[in-house]
Amino acid sequence: MTHKIAILGASGYTGAELLRLIATHPSFEVAALAANSKAGMEMADVFPHLRHLDLPTLVTWEEIDWNGIDLCFCALPHKTSQEVIRELPRHLKIVDLSADFRLRDPEAYALWYGNPHAAVEMQGEAVYGLTEFYREKIRAARLVAGTGCNAATGQFALRPLIERGVIGLGDIILDLKCGVSGAGRSLKENLLHAELSEGTNAYGVGGTHRHLGEFDQEFTELAGREVRVQFTPHLLPMNRGILATAYVSGEAEAIHAAFAEAYADEPFLEVLPFGQTPSTHHVRGSNFCHIGVVGDRIAGRAIVVAALDNLTKGSSGQAVQNANLMLGEDETAGLMLAPCFP
Amino acid sequence: MTHKIAILGASGYTGAELLRLIATHPSFEVAALAANSKAGMEMADVFPHLRHLDLPTLVTWEEIDWNGIDLCFCALPHKTSQEVIRELPRHLKIVDLSADFRLRDPEAYALWYGNPHAAVEMQGEAVYGLTEFYREKIRAARLVAGTGCNAATGQFALRPLIERGVIGLGDIILDLKCGVSGAGRSLKENLLHAELSEGTNAYGVGGTHRHLGEFDQEFTELAGREVRVQFTPHLLPMNRGILATAYVSGEAEAIHAAFAEAYADEPFLEVLPFGQTPSTHHVRGSNFCHIGVVGDRIAGRAIVVAALDNLTKGSSGQAVQNANLMLGEDETAGLMLAPCFP
Amino acid sequence: MTHKIAILGASGYTGAELLRLIATHPSFEVAALAANSKAGMEMADVFPHLRHLDLPTLVTWEEIDWNGIDLCFCALPHKTSQEVIRELPRHLKIVDLSADFRLRDPEAYALWYGNPHAAVEMQGEAVYGLTEFYREKIRAARLVAGTGCNAATGQFALRPLIERGVIGLGDIILDLKCGVSGAGRSLKENLLHAELSEGTNAYGVGGTHRHLGEFDQEFTELAGREVRVQFTPHLLPMNRGILATAYVSGEAEAIHAAFAEAYADEPFLEVLPFGQTPSTHHVRGSNFCHIGVVGDRIAGRAIVVAALDNLTKGSSGQAVQNANLMLGEDETAGLMLAPCFP
Amino acid sequence: MTHKIAILGASGYTGAELLRLIATHPSFEVAALAANSKAGMEMADVFPHLRHLDLPTLVTWEEIDWNGIDLCFCALPHKTSQEVIRELPRHLKIVDLSADFRLRDPEAYALWYGNPHAAVEMQGEAVYGLTEFYREKIRAARLVAGTGCNAATGQFALRPLIERGVIGLGDIILDLKCGVSGAGRSLKENLLHAELSEGTNAYGVGGTHRHLGEFDQEFTELAGREVRVQFTPHLLPMNRGILATAYVSGEAEAIHAAFAEAYADEPFLEVLPFGQTPSTHHVRGSNFCHIGVVGDRIAGRAIVVAALDNLTKGSSGQAVQNANLMLGEDETAGLMLAPCFP
Repeated sequence: MTHKIAILGASGYTGAELLRLIATHPSFEVAALAANSKAGMEMADVFPHLRHLDLPTLVTWEEIDWNGIDLCFCALPHKTSQEVIRELPRHLKIVDLSADFRLRDPEAYALWYGNPHAAVEMQGEAVYGLTEFYREKIRAARLVAGTGCNAATGQFALRPLIERGVIGLGDIILDLKCGVSGAGRSLKENLLHAELSEGTNAYGVGGTHRHLGEFDQEFTELAGREVRVQFTPHLLPMNRGILATAYVSGEAEAIHAAFAEAYADEPFLEVLPFGQTPSTHHVRGSNFCHIGVVGDRIAGRAIVVAALDNLTKGSSGQAVQNANLMLGEDETAGLMLAPCFP
Repeated sequence: MTHKIAILGASGYTGAELLRLIATHPSFEVAALAANSKAGMEMADVFPHLRHLDLPTLVTWEEIDWNGIDLCFCALPHKTSQEVIRELPRHLKIVDLSADFRLRDPEAYALWYGNPHAAVEMQGEAVYGLTEFYREKIRAARLVAGTGCNAATGQFALRPLIERGVIGLGDIILDLKCGVSGAGRSLKENLLHAELSEGTNAYGVGGTHRHLGEFDQEFTELAGREVRVQFTPHLLPMNRGILATAYVSGEAEAIHAAFAEAYADEPFLEVLPFGQTPSTHHVRGSNFCHIGVVGDRIAGRAIVVAALDNLTKGSSGQAVQNANLMLGEDETAGLMLAPCFP
Repeated sequence: MTHKIAILGASGYTGAELLRLIATHPSFEVAALAANSKAGMEMADVFPHLRHLDLPTLVTWEEIDWNGIDLCFCALPHKTSQEVIRELPRHLKIVDLSADFRLRDPEAYALWYGNPHAAVEMQGEAVYGLTEFYREKIRAARLVAGTGCNAATGQFALRPLIERGVIGLGDIILDLKCGVSGAGRSLKENLLHAELSEGTNAYGVGGTHRHLGEFDQEFTELAGREVRVQFTPHLLPMNRGILATAYVSGEAEAIHAAFAEAYADEPFLEVLPFGQTPSTHHVRGSNFCHIGVVGDRIAGRAIVVAALDNLTKGSSGQAVQNANLMLGEDETAGLMLAPCFP
Repeated sequence: MTHKIAILGASGYTGAELLRLIATHPSFEVAALAANSKAGMEMADVFPHLRHLDLPTLVTWEEIDWNGIDLCFCALPHKTSQEVIRELPRHLKIVDLSADFRLRDPEAYALWYGNPHAAVEMQGEAVYGLTEFYREKIRAARLVAGTGCNAATGQFALRPLIERGVIGLGDIILDLKCGVSGAGRSLKENLLHAELSEGTNAYGVGGTHRHLGEFDQEFTELAGREVRVQFTPHLLPMNRGILATAYVSGEAEAIHAAFAEAYADEPFLEVLPFGQTPSTHHVRGSNFCHIGVVGDRIAGRAIVVAALDNLTKGSSGQAVQNANLMLGEDETAGLMLAPCFP
């Protein structure tokens, strides 16, 4: 059965990645594409790599006829997203890729994002889109909030450990290395090739990055008590990929066993043999997440490393995975593309 | 119907790329993988990006039981390939990705490769694997010789023009910009990241690059008279992609019309609107080739630019495309992956 | 003797490169730095890599007290430059890094730049800044016009050949591969790391790039008859460097001899042994230009390859070299930094 | 006064970097260059970026006439270095860039390097080459042991804090991001551009990296009690640069004050304003180290970030700095090159 799909914000990187994945999806049909700033343009001009596809002309989202459309991916900027989504018809299933519905608590939202939420009533309805941990709720949801790409990586590296109580909760440190596409198509000096290539720096240092709101919400709920992690992202000269290095207290073998158990049946989460760690090279362009565990020379300390592609498993791949569940399709449909290496 | 496939030389880049493509191919099943230097290893250790696939353990090619295997991709080094292929059973269809069967003339082979051919009797049998121009012969072939990746790019940029007589034959210049994966997984100083990143140089300057043997063979046959082009490849700090810039004499609009006509029904060859030129960014990881034509300010001079991914359309994608034809499958099976951008 | 220097447009890449070179210059002292959009800022905030230097606070150019300043580098955008320079005091020596005074003919200027020149009277006064070929005029000049970085590379690869009559003038083709810093610090989608990294494309195809105005002016004057070359620049995923591949008709050995003779005493122009070609890796961050010559397999055809760093020899290094001459200093002062490899 | 210099191991990256720095050094003269595997070659062929320099032909180290040579930089591989150095004449001052004399304790050496030391008698004599902390000893030394590049970065980020007691000693975590030139010119698959570009991975995870031997030795001596840090290096797709992110317990402002005090008079150590963190982009190709401090949202936790160029401040620049001291020259001679950005 074919499902008709709309994408709002189709001229950004997550929009393009959705289209790349849908291009070989067996049952999704792109019925409408919106990008208000580029309405009227053909996708072949906005993203020439998609020129072989027969895609609708870009329109404004207000122009879309929603009759017959089953699901809408909303890849709009933060804040815009909530304003648009509250106007969409109720029959529509929605996967939002922005940050707008990730935090369940309006106060937490206001704290991290600096403005009151414009669709508080929908915040409660939204299901957090970390598929492997919210699968049944997502299946039944009308509105799913895609997670932050860093937040997804950190949670894949830590949730089973918190849940199973195999690590200490007071001294978790997450050091992330992030590709630049996570910053989107925004025109900033530090994202220019000339300024980013061949070097690296930390950003959002000290606990100011917004994805901490998700860690706080999820880890606290999971642990049943307040959990605050230290989290420092770094911008790397690469387009795709996040590598999360987590420093935790706990027995490395118990940690590895926790992952092996938790992820045994997961189609996209690959636990490496004990002592091996992953590389973002080996997940590029795919929906897979590789996870490795090593014990430190200091007894009782371990390192967990997780790698995924921020545009795929960290964003648009996750979104398609959730859409598959919401529409009753095989969860892996359109997502089994092998990583692109070298 | 499922076809059983073997790959010889599975531990190189073209081997990995074959497996990436076959991973989502609807009717190819990998029955055997050989890599003599790494026999006994699991593919998950050789290429961790393929660890989610259920692949056979690497063996030596001599260990393969050929019963029931329909087609063999031979991704071995030049010279080794001819020695192995002549030993393979006659029932087997073979797509060779090496240079060994590209040149039909044993003397031309010896000239460009520096040694007499070890399987001269099979040289005549082999069909040149440039799918779009040898489609019917490939369909009927037992042995298909994959083209050089530079040779493919240059021919996509020139064949319809030579065939239709819309350009001069005496002053064709091909300036190629090539990604480093074309050099394979060989350990050479100039291929190290530290030496290649952030810079570029020409190589094989002056008409010494072996792919010239293919240009000479094909263009001369096509034109019915000797054609010799000037060809200079350049190594670029990128992993995938070839951009061919062809400088020709002729009317740009007639040249564009020749492409439009020649490639009208081709699923993988995209002719851009007149005056636009392609980017390797927009074909990365895909089997597409984008072609553009611009007229120069100097009357009667035109520039043709073609872009493809050397590992896909230039090598393993072409090989799968040919295998599809040889096995009676849809030519595009497994090959409609959209390019990976950004 | 110390010379007091001002830089206008100090917040761009060529401004930063001037400061990098002046940092170890024995006799230049930075007296004033202007950047109207960032006036009031410290250089350590605009360019943190210069924070160890004791530099003046940025001001607007109108605020500069020109008394006591000997020479002004003008690294402003095209068009702005001519408007500012005509207002500067007459005692000041000026090295302009923009395109505004490169073309001597007001009509040629209007043709290539699309607007009438705002300081026509100064166009005649300006000396073209290709040091090695205008040395004596530069020594005596008040206003020197820095050349285009592509124009410099192409001229180093061709001037001695045209001058000595060792190549044909009717079929010269220049294929350039350019690093992205040549585009400056401008915020454009195609200059983002995510869009530029790992791929390449041609631009300004067909004879529309403005540096052609310089080729036309210089080669025509040199040859004593109209010369029009074909010129196609390509954008490469690297920050610094231009590689010019010139396809010419002529005897390769005579061509090599012409370079050897012409550049025998040049401190920055290195002619490689016959048959070798250069790499941009080997000139990065330096004021050197490497040049190589190879004969093609087609008799009477040769390839010349030249490599330089667009920000140094192609722009700010050239500017310092010219300033040295204008101020009576050793031409190489501050410019003998070795290339930065790897 | 001119000092005659020899370099052993001149065909590797640290050898090349020494020559780049010495090229503009006011009083060092290169008298001999050895590289046993490339003896007989000219440096212009080994490192074409140095072709403008008038350098001696490569010889074997046994061929060098040591009369008149004042100082020898030894850039040989680990283990080879100790075997060669013990054979050198006693009049010679030596700066060793290998790991061979970094650890003072023969047992610690054997533990980390897996073999007994071949010149134990010289281990005691060698001075640890972290200039800013061993300045007076270095001035008087005959043999100085260059530090590990990671070890230097980590120590710049932590020594003043341990010394002044402003951080806890039991929970120090060092997460390093390293450019690939630190691995030297060795031919390994994972160092190829095709495998390293556009991705990242951890290595030496769990406390196995040899530079930990230096941290243990130095921090333990400094603290007067055993200190063991957690240290995980990551390989990044960049050629130069190390970014060390240190997670410590302590008051951020006290930490910043400790740096400000400790590094107030250091010519190469730049402490950023409180709350700012550095980038490797801004130290590339230079001898500077930038250091920043940020307080975490978790009270009593802070993040220190240090950035330097592994080939310069982390290795060859440090070596020249030490040689300057040993030869009675200005410590900064030849080292004030500004970073190369972009």
